[in-house]
Amino acid sequence: MFKYIENGSITSVNGFKASGLHSGIKKKRKDLALIYSETDCELAATFTKNKFKAAPVLIGEEIHKLGEKVRAILINSGNANACTGDEGMKNAQSCQKELAACLYLSDKQVLVSSTGVIGKQLETNIIIKSLPDLINKLNSLSGSDAAEAIMTTDTYSKSYALEVQISGKSYRIGAIAKGSGMIQPNMATMLAFISTDIKIEKTLLQEALKEAVDLSFNRISVDGEMSTNDTVLLLANSTSSIAIEKSTIEYVQFKEALIDLCRKMAIDIVKDGEGSSKIIEINVKKCENIETANKIAERLANSLLIKTAIYGEDANWGRILSAIGSLEIDFNPDDVEIFINKNSIISIGRKITIDESIVNESLKNNYIYLDVVMNSGEKSTQWWTTDLTEKYIDINAHYRT
Amino acid sequence: MFKYIENGSITSVNGFKASGLHSGIKKKRKDLALIYSETDCELAATFTKNKFKAAPVLIGEEIHKLGEKVRAILINSGNANACTGDEGMKNAQSCQKELAACLYLSDKQVLVSSTGVIGKQLETNIIIKSLPDLINKLNSLSGSDAAEAIMTTDTYSKSYALEVQISGKSYRIGAIAKGSGMIQPNMATMLAFISTDIKIEKTLLQEALKEAVDLSFNRISVDGEMSTNDTVLLLANSTSSIAIEKSTIEYVQFKEALIDLCRKMAIDIVKDGEGSSKIIEINVKKCENIETANKIAERLANSLLIKTAIYGEDANWGRILSAIGSLEIDFNPDDVEIFINKNSIISIGRKITIDESIVNESLKNNYIYLDVVMNSGEKSTQWWTTDLTEKYIDINAHYRT
Repeated sequence: MFKYIENGSITSVNGFKASGLHSGIKKKRKDLALIYSETDCELAATFTKNKFKAAPVLIGEEIHKLGEKVRAILINSGNANACTGDEGMKNAQSCQKELAACLYLSDKQVLVSSTGVIGKQLETNIIIKSLPDLINKLNSLSGSDAAEAIMTTDTYSKSYALEVQISGKSYRIGAIAKGSGMIQPNMATMLAFISTDIKIEKTLLQEALKEAVDLSFNRISVDGEMSTNDTVLLLANSTSSIAIEKSTIEYVQFKEALIDLCRKMAIDIVKDGEGSSKIIEINVKKCENIETANKIAERLANSLLIKTAIYGEDANWGRILSAIGSLEIDFNPDDVEIFINKNSIISIGRKITIDESIVNESLKNNYIYLDVVMNSGEKSTQWWTTDLTEKYIDINAHYRT
Repeated sequence: MFKYIENGSITSVNGFKASGLHSGIKKKRKDLALIYSETDCELAATFTKNKFKAAPVLIGEEIHKLGEKVRAILINSGNANACTGDEGMKNAQSCQKELAACLYLSDKQVLVSSTGVIGKQLETNIIIKSLPDLINKLNSLSGSDAAEAIMTTDTYSKSYALEVQISGKSYRIGAIAKGSGMIQPNMATMLAFISTDIKIEKTLLQEALKEAVDLSFNRISVDGEMSTNDTVLLLANSTSSIAIEKSTIEYVQFKEALIDLCRKMAIDIVKDGEGSSKIIEINVKKCENIETANKIAERLANSLLIKTAIYGEDANWGRILSAIGSLEIDFNPDDVEIFINKNSIISIGRKITIDESIVNESLKNNYIYLDVVMNSGEKSTQWWTTDLTEKYIDINAHYRT
């Protein structure tokens, strides 16, 4: 149905250009990115639920609410412009206005996005001074520069693009994302920007994005922290001849492709989780309802004792049972089955089914499967998390020094 | 009103004896303790809310429910006897029965308690073989041996006793406790055993204990984990001539003393939190209701980013705001005030009020004050937590190796 494009990025989609450079917000690395569409785009968006929303998030929410057709996204890393009050809002707006003027757009066609340290005022002069150069560098091969420029504690950039074939014709979806710490459901310190060349109504585009985010970025956790800046923006520029309409097979295909792309980026973010050495795929199965399944998965994804046990390559299933048991949910403790790396460890009746040393051996892998079967219904969920290492502590104890 | 007794312990109370020794469950350190009352005791008790309750917890709950007058508590460390199924229950019962026989008591007068690794069967032969020696060692000066024998990852033992004066007469409350990891509200991997020589009805004793636990052990967190074994037992043997009755000033005094004692132990447990280098006292003030106050305090107490920032001696108030903002509670972000070590950092209107470097200097202390004023009501709460260090990871990655 769809296939990934080698070294694909947000600029693999017709009509989208990007650039990225070092402006001086960060000491050395790239810190400023621009995504530009040659034509008007429908916008779909999801934002953090944190009460302390960063200034650029508030600006984005308004543009999204107004239903504006957008053209450009300016993103800086190194400074989140969060908890910066009225001055922070003015700073975000002045970057927005300045870029709009340079590109001959209206203000509302320009989105802004920030990630980095909280509570520090943005040095707008540095950003504004760099805009001509940033615009000058715009081209359809520079998605990777933009992906690099939005990184904070990320150790590698995240870019993907895929192509969907529909009866001889095709369209594309491209994306870049960042995220490494402060990762938890309901959007984390993560930004993702997605482009596509389909023609689609805003409400349907939003519906597809919401479902994709729910099944990807909202099911990952690194440290249970929720950021002030999380943003996913999806721009559709209609430049392909493919129109996607409600209740069609084409819409289902588009959603499938979008979900797959979002999951790829979500898993990349977990894989790059601060200090992590392993990625843990959590499958919670046969629950009474989806809320319970997600509650259990989230608890396991955030348990320090489970995450440290996996880091220590110790199949400490007692900590898994104990974490499930700590939740305010109804279940029969004797019905719970646990599998680690597909080995049955605890079967119905709380029976230990395997010598742990066999499982410990398999924990040397970098991708760990943790399956919990509750046997109380038919609902399942899938989450991703990391182990927890000394390096996470080191990164976050000395983040600002 | 009351004063602490130097080197006081559970045996500082008239009529209580204790002992502790190394039986062989652990490699080297003491692992078996006995607390014994010469006369019948009223029992008050609180237990873990974890659905996977350990076998000794189930036995204790039944004795408590039946209203039995108890005489002895047998405690082992090194093995939690949790998630051990029917065999685990049989093992706990056989230790209980054997001790009852040795002491000429009925089974229901003997409580058992376990702490340590989950999911391993108890080596009852080791325990039973040691009972004669354990009974032989019983005396009124060995509270400290018992306190030592119940330790797991604790780095020091926790013992206290206090004396309350009432018009020329006096009574005492003594206690030992353990706890270091798996610490979170609703009882953690902590055990506490408390003795007193007052005469009091079981229901009133229970009411006092519940309130004391709510204001102490239920307000601490090291790692947000809830154990399968948490237990607080309070035994009143009536050997002083002081009877405490409902709705009297004496009852209020008793409760005050009991709360103070429980808080001392709770703070000790946090101080000994696995790998911790600092203790953090969290005061959440001026909330709409106590539930909201506790929700905010619990969130702050469990935030990895706040705990690592304090470890790094970095007054990263942005992480504090972000953590509060992540909660599903109603409040006006502009009303929130933040104080670190009593220095105002954020005042009303989200204004930054101090140079962080001054506050960073004060974070070199070992006891950190974190005050959040919500300005939306009159309710306040006080919690205690630790910072999070590389050592916590190391301890818990390699706990069983």
